[in-house]
Amino acid sequence: MERKAPPRGFPVAEFENRTAKAQRLMADAGMDALLFCTEPEVRYFSGFLTPFWQSPTRPWFLIIPREGKPVAVIPTIGEETMRSTWVEDIRTWASPCPADEGVSLLSETLREIGGPVIGLPMGEESMIRMSLTDLERIRDKAGVTFTDSGSIVRACRFIKSDAEIEKITHICGIASDAFARVPDLVGEGMPLSEAFRAFRIELLRQGADDVPYLVGGAGQGGYGDVISPPTSRPLTAGDVLMFDTGATFDGYFCDFDRNFAIGDVDNAAQAAYRTLYAATDAALAIAKPGATCADLYTAMAGEIGDNGGGIGRLGHGLGIQLTELPSHTPTDTTVLRAGMVLTLEPSMSTGSGRMMVHEENIVITEDAPLLLTRRAAPEIPKV
Amino acid sequence: MERKAPPRGFPVAEFENRTAKAQRLMADAGMDALLFCTEPEVRYFSGFLTPFWQSPTRPWFLIIPREGKPVAVIPTIGEETMRSTWVEDIRTWASPCPADEGVSLLSETLREIGGPVIGLPMGEESMIRMSLTDLERIRDKAGVTFTDSGSIVRACRFIKSDAEIEKITHICGIASDAFARVPDLVGEGMPLSEAFRAFRIELLRQGADDVPYLVGGAGQGGYGDVISPPTSRPLTAGDVLMFDTGATFDGYFCDFDRNFAIGDVDNAAQAAYRTLYAATDAALAIAKPGATCADLYTAMAGEIGDNGGGIGRLGHGLGIQLTELPSHTPTDTTVLRAGMVLTLEPSMSTGSGRMMVHEENIVITEDAPLLLTRRAAPEIPKV
Repeated sequence: MERKAPPRGFPVAEFENRTAKAQRLMADAGMDALLFCTEPEVRYFSGFLTPFWQSPTRPWFLIIPREGKPVAVIPTIGEETMRSTWVEDIRTWASPCPADEGVSLLSETLREIGGPVIGLPMGEESMIRMSLTDLERIRDKAGVTFTDSGSIVRACRFIKSDAEIEKITHICGIASDAFARVPDLVGEGMPLSEAFRAFRIELLRQGADDVPYLVGGAGQGGYGDVISPPTSRPLTAGDVLMFDTGATFDGYFCDFDRNFAIGDVDNAAQAAYRTLYAATDAALAIAKPGATCADLYTAMAGEIGDNGGGIGRLGHGLGIQLTELPSHTPTDTTVLRAGMVLTLEPSMSTGSGRMMVHEENIVITEDAPLLLTRRAAPEIPKV
Repeated sequence: MERKAPPRGFPVAEFENRTAKAQRLMADAGMDALLFCTEPEVRYFSGFLTPFWQSPTRPWFLIIPREGKPVAVIPTIGEETMRSTWVEDIRTWASPCPADEGVSLLSETLREIGGPVIGLPMGEESMIRMSLTDLERIRDKAGVTFTDSGSIVRACRFIKSDAEIEKITHICGIASDAFARVPDLVGEGMPLSEAFRAFRIELLRQGADDVPYLVGGAGQGGYGDVISPPTSRPLTAGDVLMFDTGATFDGYFCDFDRNFAIGDVDNAAQAAYRTLYAATDAALAIAKPGATCADLYTAMAGEIGDNGGGIGRLGHGLGIQLTELPSHTPTDTTVLRAGMVLTLEPSMSTGSGRMMVHEENIVITEDAPLLLTRRAAPEIPKV
């Protein structure tokens, strides 16, 4: 089943470019250094890839100084993995050490290589993966002030490199092939939970490294909810079955779904499917540099009419994370540029508290967008 | 392959008990309400289980008032899933809405049902899964001060209920059966990455819902690192192969590893294996109420001698998260009590930058501890 996979990791030039761009932007913003403590940002600038972030015990820090390579301040357990990246200045402490969980070492490092104004993502979609008490201690000990660096991170991460697009394309291809196998994997009478299990295994068989995200639903003419774990209710004729997956290759996500008819589904479900297909087409037709996320929203919403699905947006960015900014909402006026990887995710009500969602993944080019997913069938496929 | 699984979810009494305990402790601590924004805590007190936390877009909030049930302040997309829990007071906003991402709704709710002193986990092993800027806005708008509630959360979560232990026992049994199949799944010449894939699929086949954590390594007489993703290096005679997995059932983790000899491994590796086995036995012999985590550390370290593995601790708590407090370190004097679920995880150097790690999962009882994992073989098993 294994297809030709792109190389893992990135050439050093990729990290040099990312870091140089961040350094230009932080200089413009008057920041002396950037501090990161979250997985996507630490990985983006260092290449440090591990599932160990699952454990909340230890904080991890990466600093981007005014010039030169990033500096890692991390627990000893990560030293060998960090040594395999392009980062050279790696400072470690023996963790867990609740009395001083990296606080002194990071404070000293910030004083030495930083300056008084430290950029830290503190706004939209950010989080602080460390103790708030320790963050305040570090601020005081290092004698720094934190200022929001979110717009710098976004400016870097919005535009994907060719190597990043290659990884996302690969995982989209894997998931497309796994979706193509669904009619062979599931059928009437199978509990939804077992259908999930079979599909998750198929994604791995097809070459996904991991399946951090798998949701879905099944119900007569639509599903009630798209974020709950599966129940053991058997698939029943007339059900619309949907899987939505964020599988990964080398730390990059796909994020799309497919709908299937279990036996014959009612006309309303078939019509909703066609409407959502048309909504995606409407967005594909205008997804070019210069258009905005709000334009994409308007194009899709125009097809859907008054029966929106209540998901709150009609797509978003995609890459290192399952969902990234921007968001296709009426108020997000982010201008599309070549190299942005986006989802198109129109949803609508199918009546009686049921809904349907479609999703495709695209990359913006100078010309028409490229579909990274194999386009859904124009009519709902029957299992 | 499916075995008899315990029921999913919990009876309402479980959430009543958890909440009542938190309310007693917060009253003692002079807090007017507890605020949570992180997955484990929101789930612990509400039962809200979804992989949707993968998306960083939306914050989620749960408040425990002085009396009565928790109150949820969440994005509309989660309303139906939250309605399936025991929580009744569910307040939603249409998200994403970067201009006011739940800030007004949460502030109003805190003013209405809270009080001036709000507990928030801010210390050891905590994180803030929301924008720091918005947290400060909420503090100002609601007119509250935040104080660390970490010790309250720990006091609740340290002791697992019978129903929780049943779930952890189930996933430990699934992973034990998957480990028993490893000699049939892998062999000399197989790339390590393919061995990982085969083992991950086997865990799912045996009944795991998901495998959020899988690390390991393979190398001559030991491995260099236990947190990197697998390379494509083929397994070679003389390698020690190790998988360490945190698989889940109904949101509860196992966390243990097993070592295998690919062909014949050198005497040093065999001796290290026996030493780690003996270290685990030493901890099992004293893991009773009244002993401390530091005692467990000392018992294991006494067997290992001067060749510790550099992981920083020799085990930890386990449950809703892959790793939970406490930690088996020389300085963690947490006293063991019946109902605590713990890992025993001795590690040691095998020379030349190589290491070996053993891990078992146990529950503390009034008498001897119960092994939740099927005990590793006393000699390294040969593939």
